[in-house]
Amino acid sequence: MAREQNMTKKAVVLGIDIGGTTSSFGFVEQDGTCFAETTIPTRPREPAEYLVTSLCKRAREAFAPFAAGHELKGIGIGAPNANYYTGIVQRPINLDWDEEVPLAELFHSQFGLPVAVTNDANAAALGEMKYGAARGMRNFISITLGTGLGSGIVVNGEIVYGSDGFAGELGHTVVDPAGRMCSCGKRGCLETYVSAPGLCRTAFSLLAERTEESVLRAFSFQALTAKDVFTAACNKDCLALEAFAVTGRILGVKLADAVAHTSPEAFIFHGGLAASGDLLLVAAKRSMEENLLSIYRGRIPLLLSGLQGLNAGVLGAGALIWNEIKL
Amino acid sequence: MAREQNMTKKAVVLGIDIGGTTSSFGFVEQDGTCFAETTIPTRPREPAEYLVTSLCKRAREAFAPFAAGHELKGIGIGAPNANYYTGIVQRPINLDWDEEVPLAELFHSQFGLPVAVTNDANAAALGEMKYGAARGMRNFISITLGTGLGSGIVVNGEIVYGSDGFAGELGHTVVDPAGRMCSCGKRGCLETYVSAPGLCRTAFSLLAERTEESVLRAFSFQALTAKDVFTAACNKDCLALEAFAVTGRILGVKLADAVAHTSPEAFIFHGGLAASGDLLLVAAKRSMEENLLSIYRGRIPLLLSGLQGLNAGVLGAGALIWNEIKL
Repeated sequence: MAREQNMTKKAVVLGIDIGGTTSSFGFVEQDGTCFAETTIPTRPREPAEYLVTSLCKRAREAFAPFAAGHELKGIGIGAPNANYYTGIVQRPINLDWDEEVPLAELFHSQFGLPVAVTNDANAAALGEMKYGAARGMRNFISITLGTGLGSGIVVNGEIVYGSDGFAGELGHTVVDPAGRMCSCGKRGCLETYVSAPGLCRTAFSLLAERTEESVLRAFSFQALTAKDVFTAACNKDCLALEAFAVTGRILGVKLADAVAHTSPEAFIFHGGLAASGDLLLVAAKRSMEENLLSIYRGRIPLLLSGLQGLNAGVLGAGALIWNEIKL
Repeated sequence: MAREQNMTKKAVVLGIDIGGTTSSFGFVEQDGTCFAETTIPTRPREPAEYLVTSLCKRAREAFAPFAAGHELKGIGIGAPNANYYTGIVQRPINLDWDEEVPLAELFHSQFGLPVAVTNDANAAALGEMKYGAARGMRNFISITLGTGLGSGIVVNGEIVYGSDGFAGELGHTVVDPAGRMCSCGKRGCLETYVSAPGLCRTAFSLLAERTEESVLRAFSFQALTAKDVFTAACNKDCLALEAFAVTGRILGVKLADAVAHTSPEAFIFHGGLAASGDLLLVAAKRSMEENLLSIYRGRIPLLLSGLQGLNAGVLGAGALIWNEIKL
């Protein structure tokens, strides 16, 4: 009887999305049904072990009411600078963790289950492929526009990890080698132009160059957010509109470059800035088309995430481990 | 007896390299031993069928003396704009062929053997992976510097063909959207700066901007070749040296972008301009390193082809079909 009951249990995985300020988890069935979603503060100044212990404790508590009907099969984790090959998080920029944290090992020792990790942008791509806008696609690029520009490149149905697990960093491709300072230490990286802070920097640059009236002239650099620029643009503020147009043009050129590398079927956009939609993407599409070889033109859509309103990070982490385990 | 003799025959493939002015073929054993290499004029103004008929006839003649000891197992072809997925050559720039030529089908109907086609740059990458400088590598990028800039991207041991078979066109990534006119119809493509003609254009631009003496001041634009710039640079002509330095810097920035896409173990260079070696590659390496994220720095060598002195195009085409057939 006990055995029979066990056989009818539904397989489920734990998807964990670790961010710089909050971390989320949820239990993800193979069809993408997600339950017991929970968000906890990351406490970035504490060592990694603190977060791992909290997550494990809270996940066990959240799973308890479902344990009779579900069997946990594995754990997928999306985290900044997490390396799929090694299971290690290396020097995450916004977390005061050790230089190298063996995240997969830490979770494996707690649960004794298969664990896979990857960076948050790759997890987002996997989520789109399994549950979102990229279902059925074998070649696409997912781009997350938030405080930075993250990307996941899919070729032949698989994330491109490259020789070291660190492929797919389009946010640090070069717009201008002598351009804006980037938090990575380089200059002119794409994400210094195309990201929420990048949009604000462009707005400030336009405020300096132009003389038109703009509501943005009332903001300090510290106070201005991408949301403010978005609101101003929706109200037809011409400098805010121009800030989006400039951002879109730069994005489009680098999308064209990405096409020349891996020739995707589509780009899929996530994140706060992507939610500004046409304001950004119409200019990006025009600029991409202008910079594409004719063989690629007119067939690569810029799509919004198919996981809006859902916890894309948790679903992506779930998709990651679903791809690894055999039932 | 006849059967026994047949069983001792050595397996061999026909590798064909179709170029804008000449085409070559040779018979390639699995270990890369190549025999009966032959070069014929391409006659680019004739229809494709003319070249196919000539190549088939000449290949049969060349194979005849070896037929007793060898069995032909397949045909690999590298050709401009050849699409691996469809077997079709689409609008090759330097050939007056029909819009679409079903190259794989034409050869299959002649020999009744497996045929695979790809563009010449991808064939070069496959040749390096099987017989050259990329043996043992699973992730690398091969770059051919000649009249254009061709590239083949290898991820997880396989050429990246993308959604349409046309991935890996790094020569048409964007250096400057308002930059030099390219034969593809766009502006500012990498190959307008980094290629044999690109080097000459940069030399002419420097002649206009600078006032230093230079032997290059005696050349017409028509007359100047990359070889002349190379010779002048070897003789310490400062403008020729600067032309190489500028070319290398631009190349390095785009190599850094390519690393951020697919994180290769190495870049491997072919072609006439690559033969200028350190003159170009020292500046390229420095500029690449300056534009790389720290996680990638110091570990990606710029290597010269491991097939120098050999017919890399024929070996690459041979490698292409060797990867497809089962013995």
